[in-house]
Amino acid sequence: MEKDNKKITSREKDFAKWYTDVVRAAKLADYSSVKGCIVIEPNGYAIWERMQEILDREFKKLGHVNCQMPLLIPENLLRKESDLVEGFAPEVAWVTEGGQKRLEERLCIRPTSETLFCDYYSQHIKSHRDLPKLYNQWCNVLRWEKETRPFLRSREFLWQEGHTIHETREEAEKETNQMMDVYYRFHHDILAIPSIKGKKTEKEKFAGAEYTLTNEDLMYNGVALQMGTSHYFGQNFTKAYNVKYTTKENKEDYPYQTSWGITTRMIGALIMVHSDDYGLVLPPKIAPKQVVIIPIGNDEEVEKISTNMKNNLIKEGIIAYIDDTDKSPGYKFAESEVNGIPIRIEIGKRDLEQQKIVLVRRDTREKIEVEKDIDMGKYIKELLETIQKDMYERAKKRRDELTFEAHNLEEVENIMNTQPGFVKAMWCGSEECEMKMKEIKGTKSRCIVEENAIDTKCVVCEKEAKHLVVWGIQY
Amino acid sequence: MEKDNKKITSREKDFAKWYTDVVRAAKLADYSSVKGCIVIEPNGYAIWERMQEILDREFKKLGHVNCQMPLLIPENLLRKESDLVEGFAPEVAWVTEGGQKRLEERLCIRPTSETLFCDYYSQHIKSHRDLPKLYNQWCNVLRWEKETRPFLRSREFLWQEGHTIHETREEAEKETNQMMDVYYRFHHDILAIPSIKGKKTEKEKFAGAEYTLTNEDLMYNGVALQMGTSHYFGQNFTKAYNVKYTTKENKEDYPYQTSWGITTRMIGALIMVHSDDYGLVLPPKIAPKQVVIIPIGNDEEVEKISTNMKNNLIKEGIIAYIDDTDKSPGYKFAESEVNGIPIRIEIGKRDLEQQKIVLVRRDTREKIEVEKDIDMGKYIKELLETIQKDMYERAKKRRDELTFEAHNLEEVENIMNTQPGFVKAMWCGSEECEMKMKEIKGTKSRCIVEENAIDTKCVVCEKEAKHLVVWGIQY
Repeated sequence: MEKDNKKITSREKDFAKWYTDVVRAAKLADYSSVKGCIVIEPNGYAIWERMQEILDREFKKLGHVNCQMPLLIPENLLRKESDLVEGFAPEVAWVTEGGQKRLEERLCIRPTSETLFCDYYSQHIKSHRDLPKLYNQWCNVLRWEKETRPFLRSREFLWQEGHTIHETREEAEKETNQMMDVYYRFHHDILAIPSIKGKKTEKEKFAGAEYTLTNEDLMYNGVALQMGTSHYFGQNFTKAYNVKYTTKENKEDYPYQTSWGITTRMIGALIMVHSDDYGLVLPPKIAPKQVVIIPIGNDEEVEKISTNMKNNLIKEGIIAYIDDTDKSPGYKFAESEVNGIPIRIEIGKRDLEQQKIVLVRRDTREKIEVEKDIDMGKYIKELLETIQKDMYERAKKRRDELTFEAHNLEEVENIMNTQPGFVKAMWCGSEECEMKMKEIKGTKSRCIVEENAIDTKCVVCEKEAKHLVVWGIQY
Repeated sequence: MEKDNKKITSREKDFAKWYTDVVRAAKLADYSSVKGCIVIEPNGYAIWERMQEILDREFKKLGHVNCQMPLLIPENLLRKESDLVEGFAPEVAWVTEGGQKRLEERLCIRPTSETLFCDYYSQHIKSHRDLPKLYNQWCNVLRWEKETRPFLRSREFLWQEGHTIHETREEAEKETNQMMDVYYRFHHDILAIPSIKGKKTEKEKFAGAEYTLTNEDLMYNGVALQMGTSHYFGQNFTKAYNVKYTTKENKEDYPYQTSWGITTRMIGALIMVHSDDYGLVLPPKIAPKQVVIIPIGNDEEVEKISTNMKNNLIKEGIIAYIDDTDKSPGYKFAESEVNGIPIRIEIGKRDLEQQKIVLVRRDTREKIEVEKDIDMGKYIKELLETIQKDMYERAKKRRDELTFEAHNLEEVENIMNTQPGFVKAMWCGSEECEMKMKEIKGTKSRCIVEENAIDTKCVVCEKEAKHLVVWGIQY
């Protein structure tokens, strides 16, 4: 096989460079002429489409419906909820001219759409009969980040934002938890990423939320990534936007709100958790193409067997295709490897004569010889499941290896200076102590977890601890 | 049945008012706080999702892949193709501030993405081996229109834009025609709209295109709507953006380009072609919900039959659901009518005792009594097909009734002043004559059609005619 690894830097040598090399080599995204914005190329977008398909089905099963709010928000509307303004104003982009005229009021490009949903609710929710509303939208948003990296942090990104509104606190909190669980299961079952779930601290919660639930993922290099958050707003926004309804008891009240979102950042996480020096590695359940069949040489039998096998696999619900381009087999092998196709099937005349077929697992790069006449549909189906499971276990093992406990600041420093990872440590609940932790290489609280206490004292101030917190250095 | 027609103005009395009444009553869209931008509500968005699903499958079958270009275009990039700038500059919105700073260069929100694709091509297309590229993206675009109407013309709208690039003129022209045919079939087979296809005149073609193919639809009131255009660019853009490749003969050349798009305007056309004074009417093939089952009264047998029927219909591939909300049956009937559900099935105890079930067709509002024990899956499947066919035939009949021939300006004036519609008339090919036609109530050339000449002279100047043109008053 040609070792056409498309000049991918070694992951151990330079993780950041390795990451962008994989993004480029697998043709997932490219930089654009607009600073901080990327082009999501077909290989990258296909992963996003697969994510959308799976999540959208889940959302709809739970009664959510899709809609579409405008891209632009008038300045006065954005300014109605003070926490949100404070949180987002520094990073919005403003439209000030349209149709060759200066606008009377600036319009910002949505950084998130709570304001627009509230504005809509205020027109349409009058009675308890109008509740709940379970909305979601798939769209682009824009946040004027200073430092950007493809998928992980870019000025424009794609996401879904769910927005729901309910009669009672209980119902809204149930929704917040339910959607957290959807994201959590998606991480574990589909992305093969063993996320930790928990609650953000006051300092780290979403601007305007009462609390924020989050999934925290650990990348291969021990850096943390927040992915998929679910916010409970209580009545904060409904009061600010004057969304009132008549209750069953014929009283006036403000309804309770949630929002939850997950972004194209997931593609970045897939790279940083699973991929290697040979390019992209994708868990089968999220791979847009699961199996590539590569016929070797021009031979009628090879062609016939390839076609039959493809049809056979597709019938089993496997996303299989034949690479029948005029590239050399070696080139095709390398390409399927760098692109992260979970299984490659090589069909060659010589092998067939010996009654065998060669398969290659992308995750382990292991060659497997199988008898030509086995039930390939069943075999590949099971192999895909094995790969999915193995990838999850490997990611979990890595996460566990890089998850440490600390009981004082010295221990935290030691960990973060040697091999960063998740640090479990007790916390008193004060922002002051969070700020102290940040002095250690930017270590931030990732989330408060509901696990048994590992100490009685705060890792920083040594006063009484309230929470077990997972800390990490964030992307 | 309660006549809860939600205050829809009569179509005959005030077509424009009727249109917005239907949009609101069927909860398809609402105005937003941003002037000229709409909220696409779940009922409207579900239609768009259905359109996306059907078209996306078609595009992919033909080898297209989806990607995503940035939302923003730097001013200097937009200015590289002079026709495009001239065409779009008056109607773009400019971002001038981001992250609390004035930007060094204005960024426009994409009105269309030819420039971004060309910029990308210029980086990635080097050799004939890189061709063709068959890209598409589903996204939002913005055009700063002065007068707006929900779906028909709004500042922000959703669309897909296909962008392809090829080695030869022939290949690119074939693509332009092929995609025109996809849109044409979608109109006729799915939307039940008997569009006319043809070529835009020089004056009306897309800014920067060599030529534009178009579908022209006739609304119930005789006004024309352009929907689904396919452009052949030749080398116009590749030259302007310096996209060069090495040919098989090892020479340098500019590749050939196309683009094609269709928008949420289609939802507006569905209303204006098919709907009536009772609300929305949807062709079954595009309806997000095809059959609603309404159980009448709390009865175990009613419930059991409803559930069985739903499962039975779903098994047949029919999108059926039970309305088991606590609204009154009358309210449910009215709601399913205004929302345009193609078939309503009423399941009542009294009917069941008489061994029958009542169905109501939305398009004709006809009540049909069927035996309780017929093969409902088969029956409904056929009825949906009949409705689809009948709706197409009715729309075609209306279009034919409102399609006239004219041989001189007086005849054109008579038609447009009495009952506007499509006017077929010969044309010499001069822009001057197009401008003359425009003086008659804004009559514009819709498209040049390939049909037999109906006269030898131009309808305006009476000089030798070159083309048979369909003219109309446009939305």
